[in-house]
Parts: sequence; structure tokens; C-alpha cells
Amino acid sequence: MSKPLALVTEDLELRARDDHHASLRLWLRLLSCTTLIEDAIRQRLRENFGITLARFDLMAQLERHPDGLTMGELSRRMMVSGGNITVIVDQLEKEQLVQRRTAATDRRSFHVLLTPTGRKSFVRMAKQHEEWVIALFAELSTRQQEQLQGLLGHLKTSLHQHK
Amino acid sequence: MSKPLALVTEDLELRARDDHHASLRLWLRLLSCTTLIEDAIRQRLRENFGITLARFDLMAQLERHPDGLTMGELSRRMMVSGGNITVIVDQLEKEQLVQRRTAATDRRSFHVLLTPTGRKSFVRMAKQHEEWVIALFAELSTRQQEQLQGLLGHLKTSLHQHK
Repeated sequence: MSKPLALVTEDLELRARDDHHASLRLWLRLLSCTTLIEDAIRQRLRENFGITLARFDLMAQLERHPDGLTMGELSRRMMVSGGNITVIVDQLEKEQLVQRRTAATDRRSFHVLLTPTGRKSFVRMAKQHEEWVIALFAELSTRQQEQLQGLLGHLKTSLHQHK
Repeated sequence: MSKPLALVTEDLELRARDDHHASLRLWLRLLSCTTLIEDAIRQRLRENFGITLARFDLMAQLERHPDGLTMGELSRRMMVSGGNITVIVDQLEKEQLVQRRTAATDRRSFHVLLTPTGRKSFVRMAKQHEEWVIALFAELSTRQQEQLQGLLGHLKTSLHQHK
């Protein structure tokens, strides 16, 4: 039994409106999960190591690039916002945890890389950081984490295409 | 057939290490999806309305609270970081989009609320914002969005308990 056209249209509109709310609710939930985890990690880093999340993030990027990164590359790779990269690098250099190395090809540009001490210090913190992340996700079963990983993977791919 | 104890221990260690990596990978993927969406919305807000994400977020909090919020409440409710709330409120007041209202009970404290013009301006932007969010999630089916919503809901509950 088919509905009158006016009712069908109204149904579509209602559904569309519900769909909208669903995506928006999903985005707000995604954002609030990320914020909750970020805040928890930020707090633990401060309490346990007296460092900011931006500093941890910056060292993590350097750890993945043993040959060092330029300031521009570092800036693009940072996953958290809100830290002034030049200030962090200056501090880390003063503590001898990173060093600047002038490029052989262009004496005006330089790479930043972890010193052996910096790497050791980061690895120790990263181990702790990993434990915190495991604990924060521990209520989700392995199966649920896999599902979440899959769905977010799908989302991430589509977001990259969107760009 | 049971394995020698040494091998069992090694298996557990391997599994533990894999589990670690899985949660950490999950967290990094969650963070990068959030960052990608946030960046996309930030860019569209700037291009279409010439405003920052922090300003949009602040107006969104006020829209949900018609009686207004104190500066402290506003600060706690903000979902994105990186904006100076006092500066944003001052700007919005100058543009007559928000007003400060002194509390009847305590003349030293005040609430911030949207003016009718501010509300109208926000509603127009929010409609566009919703369309963007829908488009950003459009590659996920309704079923996948529901699954994601469910899994993130589970995660969010456990993160609140964790606190």
C-alpha cells in the first residue's frame, strides 16, 4: 500500500533530519572520547614526567625519524595542537635531549633529532604512555577494539579522499 | 598437549605486546580521525563565515543554555582548546552577538548569553556545520555509523568511570 506523495516527502524529510542528527551526534561523541583520553594522558604526563603533551608528541615524531626532521616537517607531523614548536625545541636542546644538525646540502636549513639521551628518555616515557593507553581502552574487548579500528579506518580513508 | 612453561611465558609476553600495540594504534587512529574532521570544519568555518572553531564552539555552548553561562562554566564546557575565552566573549559582545548579564543574587558575578541576533547568526552557521559533518561521515553507512556510535558510547562510559 503506497502512501500519498505528501506523506512520503514528509517521511524523507524526517529521515533526513534524523540522519543529520545522527552524524552530528557521532561527531560530538568522537570528539568527546578523544578529548577525554587526551586530557587523561596530558594529566599523567604532567604528574609523572612534568612534561606537556605537545613535548611528548614532538619527541614521538623525532623518535620515528632517526635522521631528524626540519621544523616544517615537525610542524606538519604534530598530532596535538597548542604547543609552540620553536619553544619546545629550544627547551629540549638546552636539556640536551635534541640537537640541531645543519644539512650538508644547504647550510641555512637544519634538522632536529633526538640525542641518545633524548631517545632513552623518550623510550622510558613511551612505555608508560602505552600502559596508560591500554588501561584507558581496557573496558573494550579485543573484538570491540578491532571493530572500532576497522570502522575508524574506513572513516579515515574517506576523510583523506574528501580532502 | 601442554607447552613447556618457558614457551607459555613467551607466548603471553608476545600476546601482551601485540595487545599494547593494538590499543595504541587504535588511539592514534581515533586521534587522527578527530584531527582530520576538526581541521576540515575549522577550514570551512574560516572560509564561509570568517570565524574560528573556538568561537563557533563557544556560541554552540551558549545556544544550549538560554539562561547563559558563567565564564567558568563556559570554560569547562568548551570542546575544543586553543581559544582565549575572555577574548572571544569580548569580541562577540562588541559585535552585539552576546551580552553579559549580572546575576541578581551576586552582583560581582555575571552570565554570558547570546543576543537574539547572536542566536540567529549561530543557527545559520550551525545548519551549514551540520551539512559539513554529514558530508564528512557520508561514506559510512547508517549501520556503520550506528556501530561506531555504540562502540564510542561504550568507550566514553568507561572513560568516565576511569576518571
